[in-house]
Amino acid sequence: MSELAKPFHVGLVGLGTVGVGVIKMLEDNAALISQRAGREIKIIAVSASDKSKDRGVDLSSYDWVDDGRDMANDDRLDAIIEMVGGSEGFAKELVENSLENKKHVVTANKALLAEHGFELTTLAEQNDVCLTYEAAVAGGIPIVKTIREGLAGNNIQSVYGILNGTCNYILTEMRETKRDFTDVLKEAQEKGYAEADPTFDVDGIDAAHKLVLLGALAFGVKPDFKSLTIEGIRHITAEDIQYADELGYRIKLLGIARAENGNFMQSMEPCLVSKKSALGNVEGVFNAVMTKGDFIDKTMMEGRGAGEGPTASSIVADIIDLAKGNGAPAFGVPVANLKDVAWNNADNIECRCYIHLHVQDDAGVLADITSCLKDHEISIDSVIQRGHGDNEVDDVASIVILTHTAKYKNVKDAVQKIESLKAITNTPTILRVEKV
Amino acid sequence: MSELAKPFHVGLVGLGTVGVGVIKMLEDNAALISQRAGREIKIIAVSASDKSKDRGVDLSSYDWVDDGRDMANDDRLDAIIEMVGGSEGFAKELVENSLENKKHVVTANKALLAEHGFELTTLAEQNDVCLTYEAAVAGGIPIVKTIREGLAGNNIQSVYGILNGTCNYILTEMRETKRDFTDVLKEAQEKGYAEADPTFDVDGIDAAHKLVLLGALAFGVKPDFKSLTIEGIRHITAEDIQYADELGYRIKLLGIARAENGNFMQSMEPCLVSKKSALGNVEGVFNAVMTKGDFIDKTMMEGRGAGEGPTASSIVADIIDLAKGNGAPAFGVPVANLKDVAWNNADNIECRCYIHLHVQDDAGVLADITSCLKDHEISIDSVIQRGHGDNEVDDVASIVILTHTAKYKNVKDAVQKIESLKAITNTPTILRVEKV
Repeated sequence: MSELAKPFHVGLVGLGTVGVGVIKMLEDNAALISQRAGREIKIIAVSASDKSKDRGVDLSSYDWVDDGRDMANDDRLDAIIEMVGGSEGFAKELVENSLENKKHVVTANKALLAEHGFELTTLAEQNDVCLTYEAAVAGGIPIVKTIREGLAGNNIQSVYGILNGTCNYILTEMRETKRDFTDVLKEAQEKGYAEADPTFDVDGIDAAHKLVLLGALAFGVKPDFKSLTIEGIRHITAEDIQYADELGYRIKLLGIARAENGNFMQSMEPCLVSKKSALGNVEGVFNAVMTKGDFIDKTMMEGRGAGEGPTASSIVADIIDLAKGNGAPAFGVPVANLKDVAWNNADNIECRCYIHLHVQDDAGVLADITSCLKDHEISIDSVIQRGHGDNEVDDVASIVILTHTAKYKNVKDAVQKIESLKAITNTPTILRVEKV
Repeated sequence: MSELAKPFHVGLVGLGTVGVGVIKMLEDNAALISQRAGREIKIIAVSASDKSKDRGVDLSSYDWVDDGRDMANDDRLDAIIEMVGGSEGFAKELVENSLENKKHVVTANKALLAEHGFELTTLAEQNDVCLTYEAAVAGGIPIVKTIREGLAGNNIQSVYGILNGTCNYILTEMRETKRDFTDVLKEAQEKGYAEADPTFDVDGIDAAHKLVLLGALAFGVKPDFKSLTIEGIRHITAEDIQYADELGYRIKLLGIARAENGNFMQSMEPCLVSKKSALGNVEGVFNAVMTKGDFIDKTMMEGRGAGEGPTASSIVADIIDLAKGNGAPAFGVPVANLKDVAWNNADNIECRCYIHLHVQDDAGVLADITSCLKDHEISIDSVIQRGHGDNEVDDVASIVILTHTAKYKNVKDAVQKIESLKAITNTPTILRVEKV
């Protein structure tokens, strides 16, 4: 019997929602999966912190391992599936030891790979095994495989991603119900769409981890989380969303990774995108990734970014590939070819900008603002000034400006100057307008 | 030097737009492609019918072969890239001989595979080589890889596709400019978006070939082109598109392949899809495929369906996979596992329907129509009756009916009865409403 005909043996560490999904999928679709993998895929051992917990699946046919890290030493296993999470400690140790012991690793751990991806893929290569992470980026969407293999002949020029379902749900709800961030977040938490501590999601960190992996893969560069500009969505108001709508845009927490003419940049921030664009129409908890390559042009994938079934689907796809012997380096090219690039500060990137100012309705304030923009060589595309009528108690008005293309830093500098004007009552909002 | 480190040698047969694109991509991105493939990919020989034609690329470093079929016997070649087209004759011979001589085959030939896919994948399996066809379906979109590998753990329940850019362009233009089919087709031909003989495109045959391949792959069944219901878009009027819009829908030439509860069906026909849906928003020459699996739920890919760069991108992706030794059976599972299913006639499928009737504005005509629908157990969701006012020369009015869910055959029978009413002036139009 050839090596590729024996059953493929896996150990699962971490039995949360996704772990349970993987067990269900490997059990429910066993016959089909064997046909597609060309061999049987067998779970040998499972591990989690609490053995007694009822997870709704029967674990009695699998070995229970108290400390999942011990699986790294189990000679029966071909691959370890790491679903513990966290960029340090337990998960890192498990992954390192498994790779060192020549076991493939399948992981959903975006933080671990965003922070230590280069060392770990080096370790995998040294030990002639694979480190795969389809489930770590955009849940069920097979975007890692698509970029790594489906677009493999292309020089990829840009990747744009809506990579956090919680944020996209909140922004969609804010638009549809005209409610503010805090209100919608509270509801999302009650419905289970947002964590009790929403920081990782709403401050853009979770999405940023994913973007770093997509950028590394697309451009063949070392994943570099530290160089990434990250801005979350807490400061976006229902008013911003309505103004954007009026101007023909949706506000999305957008991951941007670009490699144009040797200039590399990556950022994660709320941006305006046309409501006629494919990405602008990705609503609710859905995720999407748009890629542009030199031959293929634009292609977009949309689907569920999280959840038991979709995430399990990505993990199982990785396992099937490994069982077939279809491997690839984690970031598409051998470690020696991964480029160590100098990332351009996102502030140096030119773009159109949305500026939202809250002003005392004094005479001449618009003149002061526009002259300040002019001083910074920023020209204006559209202005909306909306007062609250003569009978309002306070005379605060909104001024919304859409600029022509300008260096982002210049816009920031100009707005900082504007902020010092007596008439400005609140912190202004600046958002990039991205052509996607 | 191991087998997988030697250069991978390919021969190209067919040097139209796509063939030239493949040469450009392999030349322009050679360094990157070598890194991703783990070895060099080298074109050894090329062939086309006219050697003297200027194709804008320098072919002098490749062997010229007068009869491309001779490449099947060239011992230097690892793979043949067939870009000749046609389901019989030259292309079929070339592919068969190449597989028999243990060469991998990469093809963009949807007609060949839709008609002979089962025999050819059998031949590939017998000779332990691969037959790949990413470029045959939806041009640049790596949907074949996505279904075959990215979703490999799922029981796929349905595939919906906008698979012909010419038709989607025509339908989009008809909606945006309110012009009729003939007029827009003529313009599309002038712009080069439609062929001089548009039959293959506008009658749905090209899209149907692609759908058959997606269905076979998604469900693990033998490709069965003959059992497919095909209806093109020639009978769609600007009026239909406006009525659909009014009801909240877009009209798309939609490929449908479903495998629900053991019931298999496939059809290619113009359908109404919600204008809020992702597929409903795929406009112009773009293609898109929506897949639903038991674990992953819905996922959609959108991109260019044709053209030099996108199609070359898919062919090169296939070559890179083969060079890496990452193979798979053409339809996802070994030939012995491919099911031979009885396809349900699309007329037996229940759906909501759009009916457009042209009537003499006689008293009681709506009563006759609705009573006829009632006799066939069809209930009505919405009706739009629009006359032309009292001062019109002719008294022809349109009646548009949206039914509740009903067996398609019953709707057809009812409309046939209605057609025999004296008041009906033109052939009625019936279209499926698909929830995508």
